[in-house]
Amino acid sequence: MSEAIPPDRAPSSATATTTRWLACDHAWLGDRMAHDTWLGIGADGTITELVQEPPERPDAPVQRVAGVTLPGLVDTHGHAFHRHLRGRAQPDGVGDGSPRGARDDFWRWRERMYAVARTLDPDGMFAIARAVYGEMALAGITCVGEFHYVHHQPDGTPYADPNAMGRAVVAAADEVGIRLTLLDTLYLTGRVGATLDDPDLDDVQRRFSDGDAHRWATRVADLSETATTRLGAAIHSVRAVPPEAIADVAALAVGTDAGSVRVLHAHVAEQVAEGEATRAVHGRSPTRLLADAGALSERFTAVHGVWLDDDDRALLGDAGATVCACPTTEQDLADGIVDGAALADAGVRLALGSDQHVVVDLFAEARGLELGQRLATRTRGHHDPAALLAAATTGGAHSLGWPELGRLEVGAPADLAVVATGSVRLVGIPDDDLASALVFAATAADVTATMVAGQWIVRDGAHVRRDVGDDLRRALDVDLAGGHR
Amino acid sequence: MSEAIPPDRAPSSATATTTRWLACDHAWLGDRMAHDTWLGIGADGTITELVQEPPERPDAPVQRVAGVTLPGLVDTHGHAFHRHLRGRAQPDGVGDGSPRGARDDFWRWRERMYAVARTLDPDGMFAIARAVYGEMALAGITCVGEFHYVHHQPDGTPYADPNAMGRAVVAAADEVGIRLTLLDTLYLTGRVGATLDDPDLDDVQRRFSDGDAHRWATRVADLSETATTRLGAAIHSVRAVPPEAIADVAALAVGTDAGSVRVLHAHVAEQVAEGEATRAVHGRSPTRLLADAGALSERFTAVHGVWLDDDDRALLGDAGATVCACPTTEQDLADGIVDGAALADAGVRLALGSDQHVVVDLFAEARGLELGQRLATRTRGHHDPAALLAAATTGGAHSLGWPELGRLEVGAPADLAVVATGSVRLVGIPDDDLASALVFAATAADVTATMVAGQWIVRDGAHVRRDVGDDLRRALDVDLAGGHR
Repeated sequence: MSEAIPPDRAPSSATATTTRWLACDHAWLGDRMAHDTWLGIGADGTITELVQEPPERPDAPVQRVAGVTLPGLVDTHGHAFHRHLRGRAQPDGVGDGSPRGARDDFWRWRERMYAVARTLDPDGMFAIARAVYGEMALAGITCVGEFHYVHHQPDGTPYADPNAMGRAVVAAADEVGIRLTLLDTLYLTGRVGATLDDPDLDDVQRRFSDGDAHRWATRVADLSETATTRLGAAIHSVRAVPPEAIADVAALAVGTDAGSVRVLHAHVAEQVAEGEATRAVHGRSPTRLLADAGALSERFTAVHGVWLDDDDRALLGDAGATVCACPTTEQDLADGIVDGAALADAGVRLALGSDQHVVVDLFAEARGLELGQRLATRTRGHHDPAALLAAATTGGAHSLGWPELGRLEVGAPADLAVVATGSVRLVGIPDDDLASALVFAATAADVTATMVAGQWIVRDGAHVRRDVGDDLRRALDVDLAGGHR
Repeated sequence: MSEAIPPDRAPSSATATTTRWLACDHAWLGDRMAHDTWLGIGADGTITELVQEPPERPDAPVQRVAGVTLPGLVDTHGHAFHRHLRGRAQPDGVGDGSPRGARDDFWRWRERMYAVARTLDPDGMFAIARAVYGEMALAGITCVGEFHYVHHQPDGTPYADPNAMGRAVVAAADEVGIRLTLLDTLYLTGRVGATLDDPDLDDVQRRFSDGDAHRWATRVADLSETATTRLGAAIHSVRAVPPEAIADVAALAVGTDAGSVRVLHAHVAEQVAEGEATRAVHGRSPTRLLADAGALSERFTAVHGVWLDDDDRALLGDAGATVCACPTTEQDLADGIVDGAALADAGVRLALGSDQHVVVDLFAEARGLELGQRLATRTRGHHDPAALLAAATTGGAHSLGWPELGRLEVGAPADLAVVATGSVRLVGIPDDDLASALVFAATAADVTATMVAGQWIVRDGAHVRRDVGDDLRRALDVDLAGGHR
């Protein structure tokens, strides 16, 4: 099938010279699948041309790209160290100490997660982040948001470099070659209603806290961006940040002082208990509390957003904010179902994150967003495949302060994820149905190549520099509390 | 770790001589993961020995099996021809004619499925069944239940061989080397309350109907079993079979006439509308209707069982029946969530099926059963990993009339699924956590080898005889109604 390229995709805005061509079997253009599409790549790592017909005399090398070329996927929310929990944080797991038949919940899961958080040091953070970012690269993810809150030594005192942990995360992303937004997270209190004078932090949470928003800002000001790393701020949650501190961070992140950080994220409404406590203590919902403190804007992302009401959704939509759903985690932790259709109707952007990384697969997250709503409503079609792919690309890119990412367009960075169409999951699917089959049947295992800024970081299903399996094996080979080894 | 093998797994009951050894890194024994386990295989295709220490002087060839060796997985419920729907039956699909934003439901989905059913002939049925059974073999599935109801020519008249369609399914399984239970399905009426005199079948449903239960039984009696194919009966649903005909089939399948078929299946309570119609017309639930007609027994499987009440669950549990959940399909079709914990509490066995085959991955089905309930209840731990793996193995084997399958035990057929532990999904997971990680993070793409009756049918991720990708490509390359090509 041959389709004309709309004028806004024509090469007129090219700013660099094409130094090589990718001849793509199929390319996702955001609203449709184009076939036999040629992408010109410049020496600066951007897309220089996007044409449907082969250049008559290509004066640059041509590489054929089999399968579907997607914009690089964006994993908007996660905590690298949670990757330790895969296979280890299920209730009644074989090898787990809990009695069979015992139910648990988010809060019991959090105890297991804290047992991991307790063991981390900068070397361990670097190792697990490098390993999981490698796993992401293999899954076609080219940009990740690290919601980073384990800042200090176990007793709460800063490391010699107070940003040792954050820099470990940045170095890990750099070794893998993946883009990163470090969402440096403010965490001050142990519960809704606690104060800075009596923060009620438990012995693990101490290492999350900078003491107050000013000290947090001072620490963060010492971090700087690189070509592939950007900075964002995060409010851990209304449990962990009192209203006055939310206002301080919001002023820094979205107010007149804005500049040092690009975006602001917060865990919002993952659990019912958080909303109940916030209403009891503050007389309003977590979202309303954040809005009243000035946190909402186009640069704000509410992570989860499971337990929102119409008022909350209107606040987020009117602000032009984003909700980042993490469906595989929200299933695993029994959080609940994000009402993505109601959010979209309210004008909220959607993004996707793998969060705890038990599953690292943005196709699973994308279909999870739609399928959860099918279970909740007994109807199908809350988001079409294009909207689900947008959440996995442009939605996340916007949320993480990389608005130029997520699309195959002239002038955009050449960040690509290539999905094989030869596997049993996608072979033989008619061209017009590929987008739907991708979203509903593809897996991370079907990704064969990943490009960041014009450089392949994954080819033939393997990272070009790292042995990701070996990185994972080494990173996971630690004695976590509970003595699994 | 070295663990003693319980006496009932000792080689004393071996009936054949070991002709080769498999030295398995990890082996799932139904209640725990054993490590460095040796399986003896006999010339008759059974497991002859199962020992934890290497034989001192192995007098038969030894093959090392890396990764996790599971009993072959059992896909208890599916319709091979639905495989055509992957990527093609989503609302608002790109390339789909429906307007964006239009919601649909099970019934609209069924129209799309019927468009495929309309096009089938025995050659097409053979091609798609061979292709999807090949995909199953690659996913570690060694036994499949085909709920088969497209029996006759499009105008409703029988083929020259009235079992041409069923024999096509059997031949397909035979070429792939997978075990099959052909669940030959009775389909007589188009709605609850229709009668044999006025069956209200639409123009597609005509080809499903034998006219009455007697003619169905006569046709089925002409089918015979083989070493790898068994016969079962199915009542399509209470929509499609009136109560008196249910009683006829039940007598054949579970009554004193039993013999020609081993088990009885029915679609039960997939959609709310079915229950409402059945209560309105017959004054009771679909399950109660089936019970009153004598259909329930240990040999009965209710497929789906989403909309059951306590009375229904007690009827099924008291009968020792099975419920086959199909979580990925029940999500996709917006059916709802199977309450597996309540079923297990009522004494109902659980099995799993991939049903429409948009996803062919029993790990996804297994975790889907647990995760759906987490969303419904906001608690975790409804089934432990052992129970979920049992649903994917012994539960399905019992349901399909192969009670000897689904376990690694001396005397059992050597049906195996081998899952790599070297992929990024499972690498580095501690031995004790492998079962949990398998269930919650593995995918069909991680299966490297599959054995049926002592013969590898899949090795190194490829079928030993068939090019499954090519089989899929050819089978899917047909002009379905709607003109996708």
